[in-house]
Amino acid sequence: MKNIKLTIAYDGVTFYGWQKGNHLSIEESLEKALKTLLQENISLQAASRTDSKVHAKGQIVNFLTSQKSLDLKKLLRGLNGLLPKEISILKIEEKELSFHPTLDALSKEYHYFIQNSTVQPPHTRNYSWHYPYKKLDIKQMQKGSASFIGKKDFSSFCNKNVSNGEREIQSLEVSHLTDELICIKIIGKSFLYNMVRIIVGTLVMVGNYKLSLDDLENIFKQKKRSLAGPTAPAHGLFLMKVFYEDE
Amino acid sequence: MKNIKLTIAYDGVTFYGWQKGNHLSIEESLEKALKTLLQENISLQAASRTDSKVHAKGQIVNFLTSQKSLDLKKLLRGLNGLLPKEISILKIEEKELSFHPTLDALSKEYHYFIQNSTVQPPHTRNYSWHYPYKKLDIKQMQKGSASFIGKKDFSSFCNKNVSNGEREIQSLEVSHLTDELICIKIIGKSFLYNMVRIIVGTLVMVGNYKLSLDDLENIFKQKKRSLAGPTAPAHGLFLMKVFYEDE
Repeated sequence: MKNIKLTIAYDGVTFYGWQKGNHLSIEESLEKALKTLLQENISLQAASRTDSKVHAKGQIVNFLTSQKSLDLKKLLRGLNGLLPKEISILKIEEKELSFHPTLDALSKEYHYFIQNSTVQPPHTRNYSWHYPYKKLDIKQMQKGSASFIGKKDFSSFCNKNVSNGEREIQSLEVSHLTDELICIKIIGKSFLYNMVRIIVGTLVMVGNYKLSLDDLENIFKQKKRSLAGPTAPAHGLFLMKVFYEDE
Repeated sequence: MKNIKLTIAYDGVTFYGWQKGNHLSIEESLEKALKTLLQENISLQAASRTDSKVHAKGQIVNFLTSQKSLDLKKLLRGLNGLLPKEISILKIEEKELSFHPTLDALSKEYHYFIQNSTVQPPHTRNYSWHYPYKKLDIKQMQKGSASFIGKKDFSSFCNKNVSNGEREIQSLEVSHLTDELICIKIIGKSFLYNMVRIIVGTLVMVGNYKLSLDDLENIFKQKKRSLAGPTAPAHGLFLMKVFYEDE
């Protein structure tokens, strides 16, 4: 038995997320390609089950195979030849049998892009949230981002009921890439359902002064989803990197 | 009569170029939207008639209209509402009647992107030339770029027969945006048919040592298209900006 780790990138626009369902998923496309090449049923586990339209530049996936000898370079070429052009396998490695992409992950890094201009330029339309209403105050957003750092109860920032809302955010940076393009970088150990997108939606409300910095503290205290900002659209979100101990 | 100047951006992927033909063109989409809003037949002139799949971030277009009063802000919103999401109108201005987007252009700036990695990442697939064969020597390409600067006969870099091949390139820069993404920036007064893409194809042959710096001089002298490099694919090319005297 071998345990194979894949680093993959995908353009989420045409996909219905990572997980199998009624529609075309990235998991399904990849399992199908692996079955063709390895002639066995393959079951994948992913570090992050990204939603429909979410992108990845460094998703981590593993699978077990009973192949005795396996040419990883050949498998990489084969997979990239078979997969739709929206998915690329960037790297293939053999890991110890105990390796698990979710349980072993130390943290995950997400980037979220906001196009803050009256007109949406066509080249960012599938890769950013178009926010034309008002120039966002990025300094105010930077101040607000401090409220999210550390180990906290994030129940207000989750679209599902959870028994334990405690999570830890290690880093949250808000910056201008260009005058009209804002990037929000978040690193954390694990996240509640839609947590990154609700944090982004809430920071945008801080940037347009609909929420004050004091409001943020209150949202954490009250543990009510309705007090936080909207869930920012999926297509602005990128899973950038999953961190493991041995790297 | 009013002369209206538009600054537009488009994602060339789904379009069959600027000019009308048997397929969906950007010119056609825009003329149709203008006819709906202004209730008159509109004829457009563009600074650059970009080929199928070529992108634009600063194409300049003008048209004449018999409208007596024209709310340009309203027209901008109306056009962006009607146009397919692959085309955006960035700016609308009224110019003097004599303004002509091609004849008055001092120079045009194009950027060309080369993805120089074994695997093509999905997010650059429609916006760069994937060149996986060899790591290109960018320093050699930078040396080679000097051969193209100035007023020269570019007959070897044109996919049509022309009586006068003399053109002037003002600037040509080759740089790494990331370790695997190369950008070639070209500014010139006017260009022969496919000239930018053939210059890029030739510079790539310099970067992989199939052509020497001496070869470049010979290609200019011989005025033979067959001696220059291939025509780089259209989808790596962006029309970035058209320069005019009053800006």
